[in-house]
Amino acid sequence: MRESPFIRDVPAETALKAWYEACEKAGCPSRVSAVRLGLADAVGRVTAEPVFARRSSPSFDAAAMDGIAVRAADTIGASETTPVIVGPGDYEVVDTGDPLPTRFDSVVMREHVRYLDDGVELRAAAVPYQYVRSIGEDISATELLLPEGHRLRAVDVSACGAAGVNELAVRRRPVVAILPTGDEIRPIGEDITVGEIHDTNSLMIAAQAEEIGCEAVVLAIEPDDPDRIGRAVVEAVVRCDLFIIVAGSSAGRDDYTAAVIEKLGVLAVHGVAVRPGHPVVLGVIDATPVLGAPGYPVSAALTFEIFAAPLLARLEGTVERRRPLVRATLARKLASPMGMDDWVRVRLGRVGSRLVATPLPRGAGVLTSLVRADGLLLVPAGLEGRHADEEVEIRLLRGEDEIEHTIVVIGSHDMVLDLAASMLRRSDPSVTLASSNVGSLAGLAALRDGLCHVAGSHLLDPKTGEYTVSYVRRVLPGHEVAVVRLVHRQQGLIVAPGNPLGLAGIGDLAQPGLRYVNRQRGSGTRVLLDFELGRLRVPTSSIIGYEREEYTHLAVAASVAAGRSDAGLGVLAAARAFGLDFVPVTREPYDLVLDRLTLEDPILVPLWELMASSDFRAAVEELGGYDTSEMGMRIL
Amino acid sequence: MRESPFIRDVPAETALKAWYEACEKAGCPSRVSAVRLGLADAVGRVTAEPVFARRSSPSFDAAAMDGIAVRAADTIGASETTPVIVGPGDYEVVDTGDPLPTRFDSVVMREHVRYLDDGVELRAAAVPYQYVRSIGEDISATELLLPEGHRLRAVDVSACGAAGVNELAVRRRPVVAILPTGDEIRPIGEDITVGEIHDTNSLMIAAQAEEIGCEAVVLAIEPDDPDRIGRAVVEAVVRCDLFIIVAGSSAGRDDYTAAVIEKLGVLAVHGVAVRPGHPVVLGVIDATPVLGAPGYPVSAALTFEIFAAPLLARLEGTVERRRPLVRATLARKLASPMGMDDWVRVRLGRVGSRLVATPLPRGAGVLTSLVRADGLLLVPAGLEGRHADEEVEIRLLRGEDEIEHTIVVIGSHDMVLDLAASMLRRSDPSVTLASSNVGSLAGLAALRDGLCHVAGSHLLDPKTGEYTVSYVRRVLPGHEVAVVRLVHRQQGLIVAPGNPLGLAGIGDLAQPGLRYVNRQRGSGTRVLLDFELGRLRVPTSSIIGYEREEYTHLAVAASVAAGRSDAGLGVLAAARAFGLDFVPVTREPYDLVLDRLTLEDPILVPLWELMASSDFRAAVEELGGYDTSEMGMRIL
Repeated sequence: MRESPFIRDVPAETALKAWYEACEKAGCPSRVSAVRLGLADAVGRVTAEPVFARRSSPSFDAAAMDGIAVRAADTIGASETTPVIVGPGDYEVVDTGDPLPTRFDSVVMREHVRYLDDGVELRAAAVPYQYVRSIGEDISATELLLPEGHRLRAVDVSACGAAGVNELAVRRRPVVAILPTGDEIRPIGEDITVGEIHDTNSLMIAAQAEEIGCEAVVLAIEPDDPDRIGRAVVEAVVRCDLFIIVAGSSAGRDDYTAAVIEKLGVLAVHGVAVRPGHPVVLGVIDATPVLGAPGYPVSAALTFEIFAAPLLARLEGTVERRRPLVRATLARKLASPMGMDDWVRVRLGRVGSRLVATPLPRGAGVLTSLVRADGLLLVPAGLEGRHADEEVEIRLLRGEDEIEHTIVVIGSHDMVLDLAASMLRRSDPSVTLASSNVGSLAGLAALRDGLCHVAGSHLLDPKTGEYTVSYVRRVLPGHEVAVVRLVHRQQGLIVAPGNPLGLAGIGDLAQPGLRYVNRQRGSGTRVLLDFELGRLRVPTSSIIGYEREEYTHLAVAASVAAGRSDAGLGVLAAARAFGLDFVPVTREPYDLVLDRLTLEDPILVPLWELMASSDFRAAVEELGGYDTSEMGMRIL
Repeated sequence: MRESPFIRDVPAETALKAWYEACEKAGCPSRVSAVRLGLADAVGRVTAEPVFARRSSPSFDAAAMDGIAVRAADTIGASETTPVIVGPGDYEVVDTGDPLPTRFDSVVMREHVRYLDDGVELRAAAVPYQYVRSIGEDISATELLLPEGHRLRAVDVSACGAAGVNELAVRRRPVVAILPTGDEIRPIGEDITVGEIHDTNSLMIAAQAEEIGCEAVVLAIEPDDPDRIGRAVVEAVVRCDLFIIVAGSSAGRDDYTAAVIEKLGVLAVHGVAVRPGHPVVLGVIDATPVLGAPGYPVSAALTFEIFAAPLLARLEGTVERRRPLVRATLARKLASPMGMDDWVRVRLGRVGSRLVATPLPRGAGVLTSLVRADGLLLVPAGLEGRHADEEVEIRLLRGEDEIEHTIVVIGSHDMVLDLAASMLRRSDPSVTLASSNVGSLAGLAALRDGLCHVAGSHLLDPKTGEYTVSYVRRVLPGHEVAVVRLVHRQQGLIVAPGNPLGLAGIGDLAQPGLRYVNRQRGSGTRVLLDFELGRLRVPTSSIIGYEREEYTHLAVAASVAAGRSDAGLGVLAAARAFGLDFVPVTREPYDLVLDRLTLEDPILVPLWELMASSDFRAAVEELGGYDTSEMGMRIL
């Protein structure tokens, strides 16, 4: 994974320590300054000094019930058989919260008082101090209410108010300046051409900083020019508490971050043993910590979490808010590079009695892996990976409650599942349908291994010409399995508008120069292609691009739409989504496969209800190429 | 717990459902309206519609490494022994992220390229599409990126930007209007007299609303006058999405919330089976949900969490963010009323291998129980309580990481512990010292039961006149225990300035009319009092206020300072904190008792270091009445 001989892989903890030391040596302040704020404004901030109560709460002895205040001594001997009468001057009616008159020491609930013309009758003796909230029951003046370094919540400031503390010394928000760099980077919203990309990283890092209570300032984009980058740094570094340079942190031709930091200040670390995130730069300029973040979005996001967040918490005099942990069973074996902390994004699902963690795509460029992740699994540098079925600790990115209500679908990609996810959520926000597109065969294997509630499948058996059921028997022998039809759908060749190569079917794919885009092995669409090629005796080696594997119908269509490929096999709806043409090849069923017991699982009830609704069927037909006439039918 | 025959105890879930139904029937909107916001502004908001990608990301095939782009076909056969030369026109240098030129289909890492004068030499064949990030690797145009009802995070908006979606339809923030009521309520900051209290509840509820992403408006305080309350409601209810009336929700003389709602709209629920929080009112006025919250602060806070938060999440089209759960061992038996959901505040500590939950004071007026709580334990209506040592589920109010680093001290109250907590936190924000003031004897029992790291103790053995050690042997027989001296301290009578009753010692406490304020049974100070009274042959029955039990030295001093009591036994520092006078009675040691193995526990290292520091000793002496000359000495 070493990208350049100039980058050393420093373990994350060592790197952070080296950065802190460099900061201290360079005279960076250890804390941001304190400000005094009113209580409402102080919520979310960190206390800069311990908070002591100025007043007791309650500040007087108070009635804790509606009733009467009495002297307990006056009620001695009162019982059901020997009631005691207390005269008009010897009690006082009080409501909850009223001060206890100084001459009384006890409260009797009004339900236990019988009012007479001349006084009250009590049928039980009052115990001294009963139903009295005594001075300081909640807070005693001068007591330590909150320590320094405490992030204030609603209840904290309310308690401060009760304790007579109306202003609090809190840390000001740390200011994070973000400098996007790169010749190819354009502001979000601007039109771009091939080779250019939008500055989504600055947006993300600014939002991450704000999420943890900092202020963020995004500077203008600078090209890959060390002098210009240097000038931008010098100008802004004095006005912030952390300066982040985005991209250019590696050691490539146009990577200047490390050189700029080294020239203007102190370069403490270049390269950390963290994946994704490896080319990270840590340093100091003008007594301000500077961080060079990698340009790949997942790397950038994790770099913020691993290095910026702890530093910023430290500047506020507190500790970072860590994500809650859960234990889960790892769905499959995970190989991981020795010597690197490996941050793996996982999906979580409660399947049967187990919470199962399924690794998501690991590429540093796949931001959606982080968007869709329910949690992060850290495989520490000292391990070469984790075993399948191993119990692992996951840092949660979503609420555990939500995860418990998630329908986990693994298998073939179909746009009807996306539509179902949308419509389920609309009718009940607590329902999530999470689908992982790994192909039909891998979906059946996931079902066998107890990793999902439902597998989506459209596997053609070349021997019988039948779909799904023979594969189910092969992959899940001895399992009590149910198969429920979702739809029939059109599969065909997705081609450029107007079908410029005049393709008529699979047989034309070996045309010289035609660039095909394929689906991954194990996907039903790949099985269909191979079946058709075999039937037509077209060798796969004659097809240019047969090696190019995409994981979804939409990715195939995207490649054709971009002019990178001339044809790919997929569903009509994907072609239509991109305004492409479509050459029908076959009509096939798409089925949901599940454990027979899971049929009755309450978690699936919303899905069955949706499939029975005419609204959903209409919306599916609207996508194009779908036939819903058998939707919900039990095939097995 | 029934406060009035007019209040029915409706189970929380039933109450919420009845409220939702009343809202629906009264024509309340089911969702707040949607607004379109730019990406940076949309963070933290909830999507009002599903988000589909407008563009693929990457939008072109890109190099995934720095190196050269080639045609894989040109490199066939290349190996260490048979290198292949690729001519100048047949490759192109590319950096990571550069578009792959259309005539090439593969990238070779620059480390594997040998540049010649006339072309490049490769010693391995390139596989087609190696080191190529293909179009749509991250996102395919038209794919479902985010569902409706999703609360946007930094990574989400960044992915939207990459997918060409620059504006999002999100729910506007729900507006919560808060009306404080009560004759005795004064704005925070105003001077108050006996019987008056500050409006800390509105501050808290507004902050709670803001913490979950709502806007809050606090209205002017209204007295206990149903007409005025009614007018204030009518005026503001149309301008908010939830109206909260604070206090007056019970059925007492001056409780008008339910009546006002019934008169102006629909009263759906009055009284819920939840403790604390019981007198809750739920209704609708002018197609706006209205909530009557109890005035006790813990009740008010929990009422917001249990009723307002789910309704507000529903209005945003999402589900409330639930607190993470952990499993812990319950420290002691917990009795709970049948038929009531009982929300118990607990402290958590990792002692040995167990995470231990210790219940905090349960009064609805003790807001500090919520401030100091690490979590909430719900004892559901159907249970009469939980057993000691039972494994229970706790909803976390603090990060689990923080809890793992908390030094748990249970036992006698001493202000030196507060000071230690402050100073430890200042030097390392990750260290918390949490002390529970239950008295010396209960502290030793807690140590015996494995509930704390350290017990603070100053127990006088009346037979031997010795402190601590004989109790340790009695309460912890057979335990390998260490005793470490913290301080010697002055105990004496805390009296009004000038000692107006001219008290000389314990013997004077039976003076006619003198009002004493006592400490709870099991506290070392109580043992000392009883010992001295016995020695002087003063019967406890002769002391007025002997039954009045406070849990801390400061609470005793607060009672004297407020003129509610004339004398109480306590430490000099407490008298000094309130500017009171002090009549010395004795000098006693205050010791830390712990399991001998715990002496070596890394969690305690910061405490031992603190006790060894001259700064800490100086600060302790500064409190008054403390002698630190034996601090840190092993007594046993």
